[in-house]
Amino acid sequence: MYIEQINSPQDLKKLPVADLQVVSDEIRTIILEKVSKYGGHVGPDLGAVDAIVALHYVFDSPVDQIVFDVSHQAFAHKIITGRRDAFINNRVSEYTAPKESPHDFFIMGHTSPSISMCCGLARGRDLKQEKNNVIAFIGDGALSGGEAFEGLDNVYQIGTNMIIVVNDNQWAIAENHGGIYSNLRKLRESDGKCECNYFKALDLDYMYVADGNDVEALVKAFRSVKDIDHPIVVHINTQKGKGYLPAIENEEKFHYSVPFDLKTGLPLKDPDRFESYSTLTGKYLIDEMKKNPELIAITSATPMVIGFTPDLRKEAGAQFVDVGIAEEDAVAFASGLAKRGVRPVYGVYGTFLQRSFDQLSEDLCMQNNPAVILVYLTGVYGIPDQSHQCFFDIIELSDIPNMVYLAPVCKEEYFAMLEWSIAQREHPVAIRVPSHGVKSIPDYLPQTDYSDLNRFRMMKKGSQVAIIAVGTFYQLGEAVVKALKDKSGVDATLINPRYLTGVDEKMLDELKSDHKLVITLEDGITEGGYGEKIAGYYGPMDMKVVNYGFKKEFVDQYKPSELIAATGLTDVQIADDIIKYLAK
Amino acid sequence: MYIEQINSPQDLKKLPVADLQVVSDEIRTIILEKVSKYGGHVGPDLGAVDAIVALHYVFDSPVDQIVFDVSHQAFAHKIITGRRDAFINNRVSEYTAPKESPHDFFIMGHTSPSISMCCGLARGRDLKQEKNNVIAFIGDGALSGGEAFEGLDNVYQIGTNMIIVVNDNQWAIAENHGGIYSNLRKLRESDGKCECNYFKALDLDYMYVADGNDVEALVKAFRSVKDIDHPIVVHINTQKGKGYLPAIENEEKFHYSVPFDLKTGLPLKDPDRFESYSTLTGKYLIDEMKKNPELIAITSATPMVIGFTPDLRKEAGAQFVDVGIAEEDAVAFASGLAKRGVRPVYGVYGTFLQRSFDQLSEDLCMQNNPAVILVYLTGVYGIPDQSHQCFFDIIELSDIPNMVYLAPVCKEEYFAMLEWSIAQREHPVAIRVPSHGVKSIPDYLPQTDYSDLNRFRMMKKGSQVAIIAVGTFYQLGEAVVKALKDKSGVDATLINPRYLTGVDEKMLDELKSDHKLVITLEDGITEGGYGEKIAGYYGPMDMKVVNYGFKKEFVDQYKPSELIAATGLTDVQIADDIIKYLAK
Repeated sequence: MYIEQINSPQDLKKLPVADLQVVSDEIRTIILEKVSKYGGHVGPDLGAVDAIVALHYVFDSPVDQIVFDVSHQAFAHKIITGRRDAFINNRVSEYTAPKESPHDFFIMGHTSPSISMCCGLARGRDLKQEKNNVIAFIGDGALSGGEAFEGLDNVYQIGTNMIIVVNDNQWAIAENHGGIYSNLRKLRESDGKCECNYFKALDLDYMYVADGNDVEALVKAFRSVKDIDHPIVVHINTQKGKGYLPAIENEEKFHYSVPFDLKTGLPLKDPDRFESYSTLTGKYLIDEMKKNPELIAITSATPMVIGFTPDLRKEAGAQFVDVGIAEEDAVAFASGLAKRGVRPVYGVYGTFLQRSFDQLSEDLCMQNNPAVILVYLTGVYGIPDQSHQCFFDIIELSDIPNMVYLAPVCKEEYFAMLEWSIAQREHPVAIRVPSHGVKSIPDYLPQTDYSDLNRFRMMKKGSQVAIIAVGTFYQLGEAVVKALKDKSGVDATLINPRYLTGVDEKMLDELKSDHKLVITLEDGITEGGYGEKIAGYYGPMDMKVVNYGFKKEFVDQYKPSELIAATGLTDVQIADDIIKYLAK
Repeated sequence: MYIEQINSPQDLKKLPVADLQVVSDEIRTIILEKVSKYGGHVGPDLGAVDAIVALHYVFDSPVDQIVFDVSHQAFAHKIITGRRDAFINNRVSEYTAPKESPHDFFIMGHTSPSISMCCGLARGRDLKQEKNNVIAFIGDGALSGGEAFEGLDNVYQIGTNMIIVVNDNQWAIAENHGGIYSNLRKLRESDGKCECNYFKALDLDYMYVADGNDVEALVKAFRSVKDIDHPIVVHINTQKGKGYLPAIENEEKFHYSVPFDLKTGLPLKDPDRFESYSTLTGKYLIDEMKKNPELIAITSATPMVIGFTPDLRKEAGAQFVDVGIAEEDAVAFASGLAKRGVRPVYGVYGTFLQRSFDQLSEDLCMQNNPAVILVYLTGVYGIPDQSHQCFFDIIELSDIPNMVYLAPVCKEEYFAMLEWSIAQREHPVAIRVPSHGVKSIPDYLPQTDYSDLNRFRMMKKGSQVAIIAVGTFYQLGEAVVKALKDKSGVDATLINPRYLTGVDEKMLDELKSDHKLVITLEDGITEGGYGEKIAGYYGPMDMKVVNYGFKKEFVDQYKPSELIAATGLTDVQIADDIIKYLAK
């Protein structure tokens, strides 16, 4: 195999062009073996292999700087740049990471920043009066993100060398949405010749490569733009899932896959074995839609976040809109829908919702429009990679005026909150969907009405110490109460605060009569977090407060249980701490 | 005058088309009289009058819904919809406001959300099976914002009635930047016929109106699209400043103006009479650029925020980039520049920086690239209108890992921090530029090195109570110390924390020996703010903490002194509070 001899782009360059297609196919084999075993992104990587091989053949990385947008498509780049074995053995991140290699310039998790960042690299190069190629590699749905447009719109200001490779695989995570993709189609159908050209409309030079999986054609194209003296878009037409039939036939499922059988493409474990909040929510929403034609669900490129399979999408019809990778649009759209009197529910991963901070504040909450936002994969049980950090949603959402951010502790409470939030017309409401699996508390009778804001629920009345356990960490709170009882006999109070956007001053005041310590448990960072609201409230009083949660840091490739233990967030550790505090 | 008889769009409709141009001119006179007296947006409003008159003549507001993007261009709309006298007497907001009129659907301050919000109104209408026109009125530079693109890109999904009026006045606040504006020019030059058409590239129908200040032509165009069964862009070519020569000749200066003499266009008060952080920063940066060819300044449509007049921009050459209204691009661009080893300084108003929350976190801080961000107009002395709320920057910036957010208390400290932040290579650094005018403390010897993070500076050592006074509120802290001494003889400690991204644990621990109370004074909202970090730190200890700052709310059209008094943030009130707390 060639690939075993390739430990750097220099090794690749020794081969004749005619042999590169074999290298591409070998890389695809490696990718398939790895992702079928460990899980990971499949389709985007298989389709991008040939272009990456050609880029490294033509350009001189890392002097020439290649920046991969939504870098989960860059597996071939990792394999070529000396990380083959680490990749095979799952010892490198799925994303580009400067700490791994000088060939990586940024940690790229969220989509769409590559063009703006490359403008920075290019202008920096010019100010330093140096020479090198700067290449942005963007695709897989990222063009619909506003940041990609803002970058493209400003590329003309660079005026010197910059190459934007648009990897057009005709898909995002699910189908592409957005008028721009109709233009890409017209460009493909006209062999790049269609006069109405999105990139030219942004004052950019343009080149089309009809077969973006033909390494020789790509080498020829890249050679023709190497050292170019102005910005150019190289639009390459690639096939998502290239070389693997199951991924071609089911592009959405194979965007990212759990471990699967290489021969059949079937997952090694049945993913539907457990119920999830996504599938439960999808079923709930589709049933409600039948009763209420004014209920509408929105997603931004990840319909499966609310369990909207292709079948459910079809069933929902006009009551479902996927806006593509466009979280700003999604929030403003939801606000407009709510203003018009219908019932929008936007489902989104927490890490991506931070792209809409201004829209949440200005477009939604300042208007006080009653849209509902379901926030998935937050906290330690979210996505365990710094590129998709999940620890910041409470900070983002809980201090915006008018917002009501709810944190259910179990399935029963989640659906009660969801039902209320859709029915009410008073507030924008976000729900922090638990990320640690569906926990049922069968005898839990949740409230049906949450309009009396910021009322905590006392789950168990004790004395001396009260534990305020937020959402996902409610079960940790229960465990702490038990451990404390076992260790010291102390009968702690346990509180489910339910609301992350305010404190229950009445209950906090009542606690003062027979408690001296309040503990907050929060599945997010403590600085600027929910617990500090409690500390701030009790600041002038005698009550002691200790905030538990995570440190303000970007945590990379962690195991939840290990991070929890390392942060001292175990029942035993916290119970021991409480005993010490009470003894003071 | 016609306009005195027009108290609603119905009154306007009674006139023959031929008389509308007179109405337009009368409205322009009213606008000029009002803004010359009170100050306000000038150019964008004068240019948009004719289109707004035509819209109200053709459509039936509020059944037909007109949404003004960056609604400071909507003065004519306010005048026509029953708010003429309130407008003349400066009793209405500069922005659309649903509380003022059923003809206003959203409070629109930040640019670019109108299209997405109109998509919501349109889809909501369709789900309700109702009929009306939905019209987004967008222009004045707003198309360069990523959110506007995301919206445009998704309009095709609506499939039914929606009209997007693109008010192309060839300017943003300063010159337009962005390749898209080259396409608008080509469209103007070809009378809308140029094949390469940005809007058509997004799969949208398109119509061009060559003279967007000709009311009759506009009426004809709008009549032709009224009740259209699919989305369409109506591109109208208008003149910013129409009808007022000084505003036409100096479009940037008359985007927004302080009160001015109508005859000459000269400001009634010399705006350069006082030094400002903007002009001082501009002078500093341009001098530094001469010494350091790798220093580069960035703005996003507001070059004057860093005092970059047209002359300074010219002088800076390639060392200055205005990216237009594109705050996401600006942050990612700065990150790329810093990565390439040059020294980017991005100047931005705090209210607009919240459009870049994800970019600050993912694109800049996660990469830990040493870009510098100067944050202007924050807190109570910022922009006193809810549409441009300024109270949320500490919440946004202070909890992002790796970020260093500095709050200087005087001119001397500001420049010391600025110099250090540009020279250092360790951190992304943001500086909260004081918003209450340039205060000098001549005998203040600021540190030159801020790399030992989170070290507070004790300005005066006292006992019993320590006052931690943040940035703009440092002078309030001084006044509280004095008032307390005068009232009670208590000699308070005064601390300038300098860093908003962490606490000085050593100093906080030392305070415990001879203090029982710590007061934080913060020019931002307390919930999730800086003071709560102090409360959180002292939570488990005996120290009492009281956080002073503003409430979590959107505050509209306030006077700073009144809001400060109403919130109890005066020296006397706080000194009285402290005396009570100490007596407990």
